[in-house]
Amino acid sequence: MNHQPRPLAPCSLAIVGATGAVGVEFLHCLAARNFPVGKLKLLASHRSAGKTLPFKGQSLTVEALTEDSFAGVDIALFSAGGETSKKYAPIAVKAGAVVVDNSSAFRMDADVPLVVPEVNAKEIGAHQGIIANPNCAAIISMMPLWPIHQHNRITRVQLATYQAASGAGAAAMEELSDSTRAYLAGQDYAPKVLPHPYAFNLFSHNTKIDPVTGYNDEEIKVMREARKIFGDPDLRISATCIRVPVLRAHAVAISFECERPITEHEARAMIAKAPGVKLVDDRANNLFPMPKDASGKDEILVGRIRQDLSDPSGRTIALFVAGDQLLKGAALNAVQIAEHLVKTQ
Amino acid sequence: MNHQPRPLAPCSLAIVGATGAVGVEFLHCLAARNFPVGKLKLLASHRSAGKTLPFKGQSLTVEALTEDSFAGVDIALFSAGGETSKKYAPIAVKAGAVVVDNSSAFRMDADVPLVVPEVNAKEIGAHQGIIANPNCAAIISMMPLWPIHQHNRITRVQLATYQAASGAGAAAMEELSDSTRAYLAGQDYAPKVLPHPYAFNLFSHNTKIDPVTGYNDEEIKVMREARKIFGDPDLRISATCIRVPVLRAHAVAISFECERPITEHEARAMIAKAPGVKLVDDRANNLFPMPKDASGKDEILVGRIRQDLSDPSGRTIALFVAGDQLLKGAALNAVQIAEHLVKTQ
Repeated sequence: MNHQPRPLAPCSLAIVGATGAVGVEFLHCLAARNFPVGKLKLLASHRSAGKTLPFKGQSLTVEALTEDSFAGVDIALFSAGGETSKKYAPIAVKAGAVVVDNSSAFRMDADVPLVVPEVNAKEIGAHQGIIANPNCAAIISMMPLWPIHQHNRITRVQLATYQAASGAGAAAMEELSDSTRAYLAGQDYAPKVLPHPYAFNLFSHNTKIDPVTGYNDEEIKVMREARKIFGDPDLRISATCIRVPVLRAHAVAISFECERPITEHEARAMIAKAPGVKLVDDRANNLFPMPKDASGKDEILVGRIRQDLSDPSGRTIALFVAGDQLLKGAALNAVQIAEHLVKTQ
Repeated sequence: MNHQPRPLAPCSLAIVGATGAVGVEFLHCLAARNFPVGKLKLLASHRSAGKTLPFKGQSLTVEALTEDSFAGVDIALFSAGGETSKKYAPIAVKAGAVVVDNSSAFRMDADVPLVVPEVNAKEIGAHQGIIANPNCAAIISMMPLWPIHQHNRITRVQLATYQAASGAGAAAMEELSDSTRAYLAGQDYAPKVLPHPYAFNLFSHNTKIDPVTGYNDEEIKVMREARKIFGDPDLRISATCIRVPVLRAHAVAISFECERPITEHEARAMIAKAPGVKLVDDRANNLFPMPKDASGKDEILVGRIRQDLSDPSGRTIALFVAGDQLLKGAALNAVQIAEHLVKTQ
């Protein structure tokens, strides 16, 4: 891929998948963070072309994505699924854009940085035209572990997720609402987007299972991407990914083991100082991270920090986190990467 | 406590807390399992006295619980909260009844057997008048581990729960439905039963936190009771208990470590043969345990059985279970205990 650096501020942007759940949040983040937007091109499938979306008081018209969409674009934010990224990201790079890709298409490629800016922003500079935005559950889980990993290496992570509908897109969010409404009215509802009834139900993440290990694709993403984000191929990690009837914020129960003993007080102090995370660990008032409170928030909420009593060596800490799947889990993280691009080029 | 054995079949029964979520399921289980019911006395608070409940085609009138309620009662099934059990269970025992208590009041008492019949039915005979029914999440979590523990001792368990509303009673189930209906209609809803908004939200279990360990009461119950049920005070265990917006079946993500290496195939084969559990582990069709499928079922559903890849020694297995909180998590387990009493006395 021939990436030609060019001046980036103010910056000509394209959003691929502009009408999706993440696309809309790209616009929200760009506006809220006062990103130096020059030209802004909203791209989506032919089906969505002609729709309009609001941005900073203007009404922008969505164009159909074509091979000619990227002329003059500095940064292209992609969130339209792996197949679209595989086809159009190289085209965008060839046209001179830097692609920040929210799909899983390029995440594990050796020449593609996989970036959570609070963790490994330094990787951004090494890009060859594409920078990958990690899996949402990986971002949300690893954010609070990074400050600890730097002081007392984390050798093992076990986690179980409580993942919201938004990870499967706007249609899945609608299916959760519609099927729940039907359930409460005593009406039948045939799932269209997800493979199982979702009203007051939960299920193992709807990605295919690796027949050898028994882990599903989502879990494998979390595990592989965690190692790449931390730059630690030896990190031992196991994930169980579960879809719960929540609209847009993921939660994760995490247990992690350090090289040396660690107290909950040490862990809490390190997390409290870290950027992008917020302690919500109020035992007296039973107030801990909840999807309701994480929704619409930039920070990953972290609480229930305690010694994991199943490890008598005192090296294991348990905690519970919640983070907005569409913000830090997707759009916000990508926009933060774009901000680094603007600053450093 | 002076317990006087007396003939038990057909058996004079009392149900304390008959109008509650578990009380109604006691009646269901007694009828469905054709329990040898002689006289059946339904007891509840003064507020509920006079209500009627159906049982095998009859309509039974609920009486107010008093100190004189237990004359002639052989077995009393209690599910009306810890305070009621603390006050009335000794009175019932004094009157000659055997109490099967669903509250946590006596569970950790040294002279009170804590019983999951598939695991430790042999303890029932040692009772001094009271037999305790374990915490719902403890029953559901430990059922699939017992067949493995007998062959290859489990030394460590880490689990994260996905607990239904029913664990907090019928009023909490109603609050989940009502608050969700309000949310979907765009209306405000002030929580009355649970401390946090429940519609499309989840939260750390609403029991008080131990300030020393940071574990909440529910987690401490699961951890202590698991050790007592297994008769293994050395079992190292950590639980994270989370309330999810599901009506009546709990799910649990479990990782357990054995003394010796174990393969997923060995674990699956042992679980498949065990009573009271059902394998739902269909990787090809992505069909695993779900609350929807566990609701109304006697069996604990078990799936996602796989090697926990965070343990390179090959001694750790991950799995995911779902079980009806009101049935095997409460009423069914208690009725099974009562069946053992009838059989053995």
